[in-house]
Amino acid sequence: MNPDEIADKVARAMLAAEGTGPAWGIAIEEVREGYARIRMTLTAAMLNGHGIGHGGMIFALADTAFAYACNSRNVTSVAAQASVVFLDAAREGEVLVAEAREVALAGRSGVTHVSVRTVDGRAIAEFQGYSRTLGGPVVEIEE
Amino acid sequence: MNPDEIADKVARAMLAAEGTGPAWGIAIEEVREGYARIRMTLTAAMLNGHGIGHGGMIFALADTAFAYACNSRNVTSVAAQASVVFLDAAREGEVLVAEAREVALAGRSGVTHVSVRTVDGRAIAEFQGYSRTLGGPVVEIEE
Amino acid sequence: MNPDEIADKVARAMLAAEGTGPAWGIAIEEVREGYARIRMTLTAAMLNGHGIGHGGMIFALADTAFAYACNSRNVTSVAAQASVVFLDAAREGEVLVAEAREVALAGRSGVTHVSVRTVDGRAIAEFQGYSRTLGGPVVEIEE
Amino acid sequence: MNPDEIADKVARAMLAAEGTGPAWGIAIEEVREGYARIRMTLTAAMLNGHGIGHGGMIFALADTAFAYACNSRNVTSVAAQASVVFLDAAREGEVLVAEAREVALAGRSGVTHVSVRTVDGRAIAEFQGYSRTLGGPVVEIEE
Repeated sequence: MNPDEIADKVARAMLAAEGTGPAWGIAIEEVREGYARIRMTLTAAMLNGHGIGHGGMIFALADTAFAYACNSRNVTSVAAQASVVFLDAAREGEVLVAEAREVALAGRSGVTHVSVRTVDGRAIAEFQGYSRTLGGPVVEIEE
Repeated sequence: MNPDEIADKVARAMLAAEGTGPAWGIAIEEVREGYARIRMTLTAAMLNGHGIGHGGMIFALADTAFAYACNSRNVTSVAAQASVVFLDAAREGEVLVAEAREVALAGRSGVTHVSVRTVDGRAIAEFQGYSRTLGGPVVEIEE
Repeated sequence: MNPDEIADKVARAMLAAEGTGPAWGIAIEEVREGYARIRMTLTAAMLNGHGIGHGGMIFALADTAFAYACNSRNVTSVAAQASVVFLDAAREGEVLVAEAREVALAGRSGVTHVSVRTVDGRAIAEFQGYSRTLGGPVVEIEE
Repeated sequence: MNPDEIADKVARAMLAAEGTGPAWGIAIEEVREGYARIRMTLTAAMLNGHGIGHGGMIFALADTAFAYACNSRNVTSVAAQASVVFLDAAREGEVLVAEAREVALAGRSGVTHVSVRTVDGRAIAEFQGYSRTLGGPVVEIEE
C-alpha cells in the first residue's frame, strides 16, 4: 500500500471502532497522508438552546477530522490541545464539511489545521490541533 | 430573584431547550452568577476508536458549562473561541464534572475557565472560553 | 493601487509607526492581500534563561505578521485572541521567518494562520489568530 | 528550603539568566509553588502602530509569569502551547501585573492560567498555558 492508501485504511478502521461515528453520522469523503475531509449532517440532537449547532458538535466534527489526519501515517497519535474560533451559526439539516491538513511536524509533535464549512462553502469554524505521537500502529497492515 | 437565582433559572431553561442536553445526558449540579458546575456520564456512544472518551465529547461538556456561566446574567452570549488542553483519558461509565468560572469581563467580552475532572478529582481537561454578549435576555423573567 | 499594493503600503506604514519594529528588528519580505511574510533575527535580548528564543518573542513575531495580514485591506483590525504551539527551540543569531495567511472571514471576524520557521525551513511554531475589524482605514490612501 | 522558597529561588535564577529580563524590565513581585506574580512597565518600544501595547508584549509578560509558575518545583519545564484572549488596550507608561496560577497537573503535563491586569485592576488579557516537564533541575539547590 502507498502512503495515501494506508491513511485511508487507518481512518476507516478508526471510524468503524468509534462509538461516536454512528452517533454523529460521520462520513469519510477523502483521507490521504496528512489530510482528511469528512462530513456530518446537523441533526436536532446537535442543537443548542438557540436552535443552532452546538459549539461542542462543531468542535467534535473538527476534532474527528484532526484525528484521521494526525494518525494517517499509522502511528498512534492523540490530541494534546486544540483551539477553535467560531465564525457563523450552522442550522438543523445543514451538511458540514471538515477539512484537515497537517501543517507541521517536529519530533513527536504535530500541528493540524481544520476548516469547518457548509457544503456551499460558508465558513463555520477554524480549528488548530496539536497532536503527540504515542507510537505503535493504529491498525495492523499486512505486507 | 437574586443574581444567583437568575443564573440557575437561565441555565435550566437553556438545558431544557437544548437538543444536546438529553443526547449527552447533561445534569446541572449548581449554577450561580458567573459559575456553573455540570455532570455527564461517559457512554459507549461517546468513545473514540481507542475506547476512551472522544476529545469532542470532553470539549462538548466543557463548552456546555461555559455557556451556562457566560449567560448567567441573562444577557445572551455566544462562544467566540475556545482552547482546550487534554490531560488524561476518561473511560466508559466514568462520571465527568465540568466546573466553569468566569474570570474576566471587559465590554462585550468575557473569559471563562472550565476544569473537567472525574468525580474523584482526576484532571481530564482544562478549557479557556472567550464569549461575546449579543444583548437581549436568554429567558423572560417576570418581576 | 491594486489590493496587493494597498496591503504592502499598509504594512510598511504600520511597521514605521511601531515602537516594537526597531526594537525587534522586524523586516518585511512580502505583503499581499490577506498575506504577510516577515523576518526577525534572534538576538541575545530575546533569549530565555535556557539560552534559547523566549516563547514571548516567537509569539511576538507571529503576532506581527498576523497584524499585517489582517489589516491588509486597509480596514483597521485588532487581535482578539491567538493560540500558539511551540515546536522547536530557536537559537541566538538564527533568522526566523513568519508567514501569515488569512484563511477565513465572516462578518467582522477573521482567522489567520502563521507559520514560524527558520530560514532553512525548520518548524519553530504554528499560530492561529482571531481578528475583529474595528472599521476605519489604517492609512490614508489618495486616489 | 521549603517549596515556596525553592520556587522563589528558581524564578530569580531564571530572571537573572534571561536576555529578555532586562530588555523587558521584568520585576518579580511574588513566586510560590505553582504561583508567580510579576510586573512590567509598558515603554514606547513596546507599542504597536496604534500607540497601544503590542499584543506580542502582553503575551510575553504572561508567558514569563507562566514560566516561573510551571518551573516552580525546580523541575525543568517548557511551554508546549499557549492561548491568549486580549480584552483591553494598555497604554504607554502603564504598569502591568501578570498573575500565574498552575491549575492542573497530570504526568508530564501542566496547565497554568495567567491574568494580565493594570495595577489598578483593569483586565488586559487572559492566558492559558500548557507546559511539559523535561526533567532535571532548573537550578542547583544545596541541601
